[in-house]
Amino acid sequence: MTRRSLGKALSCMAASGAFLDGAAQKKLVAPPGYTVVNMGGLQHLKPDKPEQIAMLIYPGMTALDLIGPQQAFGYTMGAKVHLIWKDLLPVESDTGVKITPTAKMKDLAEPVDLIFVPGGGKGTVALMSDAEVLDFLAAKGKTARYVTSVCSGSLVLGAAGLLRGYRATSHWAVREVLPTLEAIPASGRVVEDRNRITAGGVTAGIDFGLYLVAKLRGDDYAQALQLMLEYDPHPPFHSGTPEDARADIRDLATVMYAPLLKSAGLAAEARKTSWSNHP
Amino acid sequence: MTRRSLGKALSCMAASGAFLDGAAQKKLVAPPGYTVVNMGGLQHLKPDKPEQIAMLIYPGMTALDLIGPQQAFGYTMGAKVHLIWKDLLPVESDTGVKITPTAKMKDLAEPVDLIFVPGGGKGTVALMSDAEVLDFLAAKGKTARYVTSVCSGSLVLGAAGLLRGYRATSHWAVREVLPTLEAIPASGRVVEDRNRITAGGVTAGIDFGLYLVAKLRGDDYAQALQLMLEYDPHPPFHSGTPEDARADIRDLATVMYAPLLKSAGLAAEARKTSWSNHP
Repeated sequence: MTRRSLGKALSCMAASGAFLDGAAQKKLVAPPGYTVVNMGGLQHLKPDKPEQIAMLIYPGMTALDLIGPQQAFGYTMGAKVHLIWKDLLPVESDTGVKITPTAKMKDLAEPVDLIFVPGGGKGTVALMSDAEVLDFLAAKGKTARYVTSVCSGSLVLGAAGLLRGYRATSHWAVREVLPTLEAIPASGRVVEDRNRITAGGVTAGIDFGLYLVAKLRGDDYAQALQLMLEYDPHPPFHSGTPEDARADIRDLATVMYAPLLKSAGLAAEARKTSWSNHP
Repeated sequence: MTRRSLGKALSCMAASGAFLDGAAQKKLVAPPGYTVVNMGGLQHLKPDKPEQIAMLIYPGMTALDLIGPQQAFGYTMGAKVHLIWKDLLPVESDTGVKITPTAKMKDLAEPVDLIFVPGGGKGTVALMSDAEVLDFLAAKGKTARYVTSVCSGSLVLGAAGLLRGYRATSHWAVREVLPTLEAIPASGRVVEDRNRITAGGVTAGIDFGLYLVAKLRGDDYAQALQLMLEYDPHPPFHSGTPEDARADIRDLATVMYAPLLKSAGLAAEARKTSWSNHP
């Protein structure tokens, strides 16, 4: 389905007055910059101007951290989704997927509505001491309505100083690094503290994406998206958290992640030291 | 985490004999081409030679259909994951993500262990009458151990004649096209019939990816992956299937998908006619 066909269908529905007798819904209140519209009986927040969504991409990121929410944002009619990096050459994910940026950091002059950082491994730790990236995030984070991440992406937000004093989460294997970055670690698939919204590891990006679309456009819209994405998960095993996983599997995974945890911890210490020196 | 660090960790664990007292497990039996190895107490199927996994990518595909399973296959140590298209220029997804192929169809001469097709909208329907793509799939499908899809990708497998007489599923909105392609439509997040394994819409690709990894490497391996991907889904709403969604939302989505359903149905009819003419 294209956005055009979606738009056309919605116009037809609205014009015909179909579905106006839908289930009772709570009344939406439009935040500044939005109006409440009725699309075929569904309540929908329509932005006065398209939301600008800036998703950082970088070498070594975990592609699914990015694509989970990107699919949701990309299906959000009218929203402008930017994939941002230093240049426009393809960046390669931690599993070898090459994705082409759509804009350079330095060319994204306007404030954005949402800034987002996906996680990864070594590539993510590298960003924690990358001044160009951290300065970009700090600047955008000042004016963005939402400052967000999935997985270990929160460590990059943290290194940019954007989580100091905020509750936040991360991939379970590196969550303990957050306090070094002066964030308050929290468990939870999606953790919201004021305008900071961080999600857990990798697949949490899908829950996160729908959560954000609900904030931007209302619950009805997000529910329609959930149906489009056929998001009715049936994990084949019960092994998605350290608490749920079999003990030997959890222990093995913990050993596997030890080098990443160590390097992320060192990078966080270095950031903390720089804050002490330049408070 | 890199594959190298994973491999190193596993070697350490195996050498130390750690976790040999893990929970009782059912004994794995190695299929041809595999041996059962013990990795730190976990049972693991080790391939004699790396699995060759061919994932078709194409303009208009739904990126999340691809990246859900790609993340799982990409984390499967030693497996070789190819992103295949006609040429090596980036292809653009239905939400504007440009992904670079790693190999051309015509250069993938060897038989593959797994062939995979993601879904999408108009771009998917276009493939249903694309002789080059259909011939490639039909040829690879003859020798592949597993012939697979997520979402409307099954319509492309079907158009290639690979689902005739097989139970299969698709995105809920287009599942009814399957009988025209002589497949037996089935509901289910992941549907397996002999070596055909098809999954439901978009997000079903994550369940599918773990399911396939379990088949390739054993349940322990897939459970470790599930933990790495922190796959403990918490959908923010209960709206992931037509049965679960609110009636007005379902009706709206059905109207939205009507043009896609119609064009996919016509493409399927055309294939069926060509089969009648050249049985």
